[in-house]
Amino acid sequence: MSNFFKDIAPIRYEGAETDNEFAFRHYDPDEIVLGKRLEDHLRFAVAYWHSFAWEGGDPFGGQTFERPWFGNTMADAKLKAEVAFELFSILGQPFFCFHDADVRPEGASFAESRRNLDEIADIFAARMEETGTRLLWGTANMFSHRRWMAGAATNPDPDVFAYAAASVKACMDVTHRLGGENYVLWGGREGYETLLNTDLGREAEQAGRFLAKVVEYKHKIGFKGTILIEPKPQEPTKHQYDYDVGTIYGFLKRFGLENEVKLNVEQGHAILAGHSFEHELALAASLGLLGSIDMNRNDYQSGWDTDQFPNNVPEVALAYYEVLKAGGFTTGGTNYDSKLRRQSLDPEDLVLAHVGAMDVCARGLKAAAAMLEDGFLEKARSERYAGWETPQARAMLDQPLDEIAAQVEAGNLDPQPRSGRQERLENRVNRFL
Amino acid sequence: MSNFFKDIAPIRYEGAETDNEFAFRHYDPDEIVLGKRLEDHLRFAVAYWHSFAWEGGDPFGGQTFERPWFGNTMADAKLKAEVAFELFSILGQPFFCFHDADVRPEGASFAESRRNLDEIADIFAARMEETGTRLLWGTANMFSHRRWMAGAATNPDPDVFAYAAASVKACMDVTHRLGGENYVLWGGREGYETLLNTDLGREAEQAGRFLAKVVEYKHKIGFKGTILIEPKPQEPTKHQYDYDVGTIYGFLKRFGLENEVKLNVEQGHAILAGHSFEHELALAASLGLLGSIDMNRNDYQSGWDTDQFPNNVPEVALAYYEVLKAGGFTTGGTNYDSKLRRQSLDPEDLVLAHVGAMDVCARGLKAAAAMLEDGFLEKARSERYAGWETPQARAMLDQPLDEIAAQVEAGNLDPQPRSGRQERLENRVNRFL
Amino acid sequence: MSNFFKDIAPIRYEGAETDNEFAFRHYDPDEIVLGKRLEDHLRFAVAYWHSFAWEGGDPFGGQTFERPWFGNTMADAKLKAEVAFELFSILGQPFFCFHDADVRPEGASFAESRRNLDEIADIFAARMEETGTRLLWGTANMFSHRRWMAGAATNPDPDVFAYAAASVKACMDVTHRLGGENYVLWGGREGYETLLNTDLGREAEQAGRFLAKVVEYKHKIGFKGTILIEPKPQEPTKHQYDYDVGTIYGFLKRFGLENEVKLNVEQGHAILAGHSFEHELALAASLGLLGSIDMNRNDYQSGWDTDQFPNNVPEVALAYYEVLKAGGFTTGGTNYDSKLRRQSLDPEDLVLAHVGAMDVCARGLKAAAAMLEDGFLEKARSERYAGWETPQARAMLDQPLDEIAAQVEAGNLDPQPRSGRQERLENRVNRFL
Amino acid sequence: MSNFFKDIAPIRYEGAETDNEFAFRHYDPDEIVLGKRLEDHLRFAVAYWHSFAWEGGDPFGGQTFERPWFGNTMADAKLKAEVAFELFSILGQPFFCFHDADVRPEGASFAESRRNLDEIADIFAARMEETGTRLLWGTANMFSHRRWMAGAATNPDPDVFAYAAASVKACMDVTHRLGGENYVLWGGREGYETLLNTDLGREAEQAGRFLAKVVEYKHKIGFKGTILIEPKPQEPTKHQYDYDVGTIYGFLKRFGLENEVKLNVEQGHAILAGHSFEHELALAASLGLLGSIDMNRNDYQSGWDTDQFPNNVPEVALAYYEVLKAGGFTTGGTNYDSKLRRQSLDPEDLVLAHVGAMDVCARGLKAAAAMLEDGFLEKARSERYAGWETPQARAMLDQPLDEIAAQVEAGNLDPQPRSGRQERLENRVNRFL
Repeated sequence: MSNFFKDIAPIRYEGAETDNEFAFRHYDPDEIVLGKRLEDHLRFAVAYWHSFAWEGGDPFGGQTFERPWFGNTMADAKLKAEVAFELFSILGQPFFCFHDADVRPEGASFAESRRNLDEIADIFAARMEETGTRLLWGTANMFSHRRWMAGAATNPDPDVFAYAAASVKACMDVTHRLGGENYVLWGGREGYETLLNTDLGREAEQAGRFLAKVVEYKHKIGFKGTILIEPKPQEPTKHQYDYDVGTIYGFLKRFGLENEVKLNVEQGHAILAGHSFEHELALAASLGLLGSIDMNRNDYQSGWDTDQFPNNVPEVALAYYEVLKAGGFTTGGTNYDSKLRRQSLDPEDLVLAHVGAMDVCARGLKAAAAMLEDGFLEKARSERYAGWETPQARAMLDQPLDEIAAQVEAGNLDPQPRSGRQERLENRVNRFL
Repeated sequence: MSNFFKDIAPIRYEGAETDNEFAFRHYDPDEIVLGKRLEDHLRFAVAYWHSFAWEGGDPFGGQTFERPWFGNTMADAKLKAEVAFELFSILGQPFFCFHDADVRPEGASFAESRRNLDEIADIFAARMEETGTRLLWGTANMFSHRRWMAGAATNPDPDVFAYAAASVKACMDVTHRLGGENYVLWGGREGYETLLNTDLGREAEQAGRFLAKVVEYKHKIGFKGTILIEPKPQEPTKHQYDYDVGTIYGFLKRFGLENEVKLNVEQGHAILAGHSFEHELALAASLGLLGSIDMNRNDYQSGWDTDQFPNNVPEVALAYYEVLKAGGFTTGGTNYDSKLRRQSLDPEDLVLAHVGAMDVCARGLKAAAAMLEDGFLEKARSERYAGWETPQARAMLDQPLDEIAAQVEAGNLDPQPRSGRQERLENRVNRFL
Repeated sequence: MSNFFKDIAPIRYEGAETDNEFAFRHYDPDEIVLGKRLEDHLRFAVAYWHSFAWEGGDPFGGQTFERPWFGNTMADAKLKAEVAFELFSILGQPFFCFHDADVRPEGASFAESRRNLDEIADIFAARMEETGTRLLWGTANMFSHRRWMAGAATNPDPDVFAYAAASVKACMDVTHRLGGENYVLWGGREGYETLLNTDLGREAEQAGRFLAKVVEYKHKIGFKGTILIEPKPQEPTKHQYDYDVGTIYGFLKRFGLENEVKLNVEQGHAILAGHSFEHELALAASLGLLGSIDMNRNDYQSGWDTDQFPNNVPEVALAYYEVLKAGGFTTGGTNYDSKLRRQSLDPEDLVLAHVGAMDVCARGLKAAAAMLEDGFLEKARSERYAGWETPQARAMLDQPLDEIAAQVEAGNLDPQPRSGRQERLENRVNRFL
Repeated sequence: MSNFFKDIAPIRYEGAETDNEFAFRHYDPDEIVLGKRLEDHLRFAVAYWHSFAWEGGDPFGGQTFERPWFGNTMADAKLKAEVAFELFSILGQPFFCFHDADVRPEGASFAESRRNLDEIADIFAARMEETGTRLLWGTANMFSHRRWMAGAATNPDPDVFAYAAASVKACMDVTHRLGGENYVLWGGREGYETLLNTDLGREAEQAGRFLAKVVEYKHKIGFKGTILIEPKPQEPTKHQYDYDVGTIYGFLKRFGLENEVKLNVEQGHAILAGHSFEHELALAASLGLLGSIDMNRNDYQSGWDTDQFPNNVPEVALAYYEVLKAGGFTTGGTNYDSKLRRQSLDPEDLVLAHVGAMDVCARGLKAAAAMLEDGFLEKARSERYAGWETPQARAMLDQPLDEIAAQVEAGNLDPQPRSGRQERLENRVNRFL
């Protein structure tokens, strides 16, 4: 026992009326919603990077957190793992997620870094066995070290591409060994600072070839999880190639990978790309690409990735509505890509931020489920498009332009608009929130 | 002669030192740049809607311009056409562009609207013959009338889809008859106000089927011009399906139309989507989709489409650099999707706004050509990616992940970053501006 | 009876469990909250412009609504007034708000416009007497007509300044006669399109002198209501002088009007200025300037004024928390500066949009009241600043820099940061929502 | 000699046609513009923090630069000072600027930090004497260390306020000793992360009292330089109290400091606040607050502070136009708050980024001077407001509302708008660029 969390006992569900800050008020893992346990719907995961590796810095200031495991030795990394599993137990989180760089010190060589990772993975394996915590996904950090400054797969230097290939292989191996349910690629440096020194077309080709290798390797090792790409429009780069769901769809189609890869969609990244979170989820679902979510909240007045813990139930409910409508998660889940504010220094803050977010998600998902069960939204949607269900309308999709035009003139067609009823639907949604 | 422009004589090139406001200082149509006349590079077109149909309104105020042709009769429309061709002559513009709704009054029926369009087209044909002005592109306005409020091709009402089909057919017919070099689709209402009443997947299917019909009809009538889609992320709708270049590429791939359709890229729309103009142009070029441009300038501090006349030479130069690098325009050109500020009331303002913009574009294109001829940017780019030209590097693109990983460990690879030299390149670019 | 709303009966409170779309579920005007009736807390007002004068247009499309009163005659204006008071009755709205241009046709001369306004005011007076509806505020529309295109008080043409003075006088007279509780100035054109033709300093001077006249006239006629300025950063102009609360405070101080004028703060305008709504309210309250609110919701992904009906309870609760903490409204209230989406065509939409918004506000205010009564936020705030309550700390505010510096060195001061506990507070707030 | 810049010789002016990358093409310090040497107009200063203390990190990645002086010892600090003065000499920069934290290692106590600063200041003094380089301004970094996480002057902990007072005193002492021409306060943490734990009113009071002490201390020690506040809307905090020029004006008026303090206006911060740079400069000038500028360029598509070296001449020209129109700099100057892109690793990049920016600024200032000398903008502005120069118009500013209204009706006033001529002015401006 690390003693970091001192006497914080495992968090239990106590119901909405409890006065206990250290209890769930809405998240009862065993509650049955749409025929499934709430835990199995939400599939929560703690993000190792924010919760254990981030030191509280921002572009104008350094470390604010003081954690006994900060440092670059294997001993530090082991203590960190200890504390991480303690948090998972306190929260009853079924899953966690990590980058290689979060969990092991960088070695003097690639091989040493890999061995460090393997050694930590052994500890993870033991702890996972003991506690029942599972791995939602693993990933390689190919953006923090200076070698990645000009990209990983899209780097102008083929040696960096090679290093990236080796890094992904090592992380996929570990993810596979730990029974991870997905493998994620977030291309934080796969983009550019200036077009003046960049060859967009060449870099896209590199990225496509790289992704194809990842898919091929997955099959080679028999990894059954899902390969996920995470969209983001910019930051740290001026432009990131995996801009948003629509852009990645085009990329996957271009390289014939649309049936092999799905998406990990993040609220904050959606906002930065000019979309609502529910838009990106609905679009991903309609394209068959919805894989998993990174749940957080971006400050609407800040133009960078704020990664706050979610706290607005109505917004979360609309997001889960899209997830549930699409059939719910299969290999995916709800990873918190959320970090404490840098002034939230205490271990209690770390625990309670997760507790609050889990409750917000539970409320959101239950509201979404209730809306689906009620069916009013889907009924209204069906009625709005009902005209398209007639045989003539369906036939028109196959008619040439001039034939349709002739009918318009012959029939003296003059279509009259009907109310879209937006406010009525919003009112109705608000009944469930 | 309408007498609207009174004694404004045709604008002539007089060189940078002239003091005459009514002269070109940089745009000499006959100047040879990269072996081609400047006029043939730039292929300027006046936008009928902004310059003749827009009344000066904004969301908080109505008409400010007083034009003798404002009204809804065929007589008004004919006077407007008269004045339009006078402006084209004053400016020596080789091209113009229009929507059906810009040039003819809405009729009491579709058929009457179409006949009105045909009648105006006869006038256009005569004037084009007389003056040598050509049609860069035609398009159908499927966003202003209330019937389009919930979309054209993506409308929940199949009758509106039919009306849209008839509208596009009529406009394509006229465009073809007038020798138009392109046909444009801007889906101003192909999007949504709220996801709550919208079926994204169904609407995308409608849009895809519609576009396929447009392509099919083009071939049927032997129209040799290019079909162009114009991206825009939002406004008037909350979300527009043709968000940006990357999104449209995915859409075209999905419906197998990527070899049939190109893009008309607008500066202001690029900015609203979070991209620089040169990014969207470079991306379109790299995907083989660069067709034509809508040249304007969006105010960087305003979150809506400001459609200002371009006035920043460095920005315009970077845009034309991408156009020239991609080989220059074929059927496309430089359409001004620019409008006067609503306080610019006078006929002189209308003329001089175009004159200034043409000079800005001429300076930009000549600077871009000089940079291409100098070759420093392409040389720097080649050197940056030179590592990829070795056989080993090229071979690596075909190697599996684990093989590359083995080489990384065996070779103890430790790639060192090299300077991206952004400021040096920016300095060098500034020599040409 | 106009028959516009057909058989929509007055809306009644039926409680959260009702299934009746045409009922309040949370807004019971007689519910006692913090010792006051809910109606007297919220002081709802319908905005005449959006609900009766707006035709459904946007920058890319025209009228979508079809209302029997659209037109420019006095008969139209009278029918509009009839329908407006019917809506007030259906909703049980205690207040309404209007611009001159919303309620009367523009006359052929200023005098005729004024007489038209006076005549409509007579009708208002009679209806107000009958129904008990009161006037929250009146205002002059000095932005829609082309005469205002370059500003009202800040116009380069002194005749426009004079016309503005006359307009405000006429509207203040009517507001006073109708017992209005406030008079509002929103300077939609008091700003600029381009700095190139603008003299910022001169225009500020004009605005200051104008406002002083308004205050002087208020006292002259014995108007007891509050003069309110409404901040907005831009749109329609590129830059609006009344940018935000902080900017207006400086303007008022400059002209010595900070004790005579308060603010009407709008959610959407706050968002466009880069602030949260609660920020602008808290700042206004801290400066003694909080007067009234324009309640709406701006789409977070749209860069223009979307003026949606509010529908997010957590956001509304944080806004009312600031209002209640500042002591609640005195002459101010909750005006909806909200408009239907342009696809919401039906009379039912108009009624239900208000019903939903009233319920959202009622929920928000009750949650805010509960948080105030609970006191946890104010307790946490007090504890955070408790160090400043010691005599030494208070004394330090009066000590010179070098004396404090000497103490720092002498005492070897090394202050340690304490957790800001943001997530814990957010969790706690969520208990009330 | 540090040997860091190896054989880079001092940069000389060689004229626009030179091919030498290491030469000025437009910046000839001795060129006479508007009767003054160009060097004395521009008053360039290198920013110590970006050019010597920044390691190349961003929110997603760490150090990219490798500099021999990185470290936390006095020896490192001395080497850094050596290299800094070498750069100043290579560039012929007349000025530099620094924060305490840029130039000295943090000590184990406040006293040790101060002694470290004093020791480095001795080195500076010697080098300044030798080289003629002067100090444009000094400032205290009260945002990077964790003690400042919740603010400096506005901290909830009075001990932090005390520490801030001591820090400013120490930096003012050093600035005074080194003959600094200004002292700057940028309140990077004077704001909040969440309103929930913040008392806006109390913090503003603390900030006002603090600033009054700074002014008082300036007079006590006989410092003749200018006290400058630097506006920024947000980042790192969610909201920064010194939001923009308009907000700071209100703050200064509130505490009676508007004649004691001026502003240091930054391009990037203006953009983040929703303003153009020239707006903020024009507003500051009109309020008598224009002090100095931080010259850089914010990427228009990035929502955070990108601090790029300026590279767009037209934008820079409009900024210097406002500076020159206001009479030019007195104690202020052109500080580069610009940093290399993090991929620009080489010493040459550091030199050339400054060289390019100096040329851009020289071109901008010379264009601005030429526009002022030509006088067309000021002439157009005068003509636009000419109506206000009549005695009747001036008298109207003193007339009451009802008197003006009576004249409007009596005279049947109907003001007609005149063209604002924006595009014509833009064209004219472009002649100079």
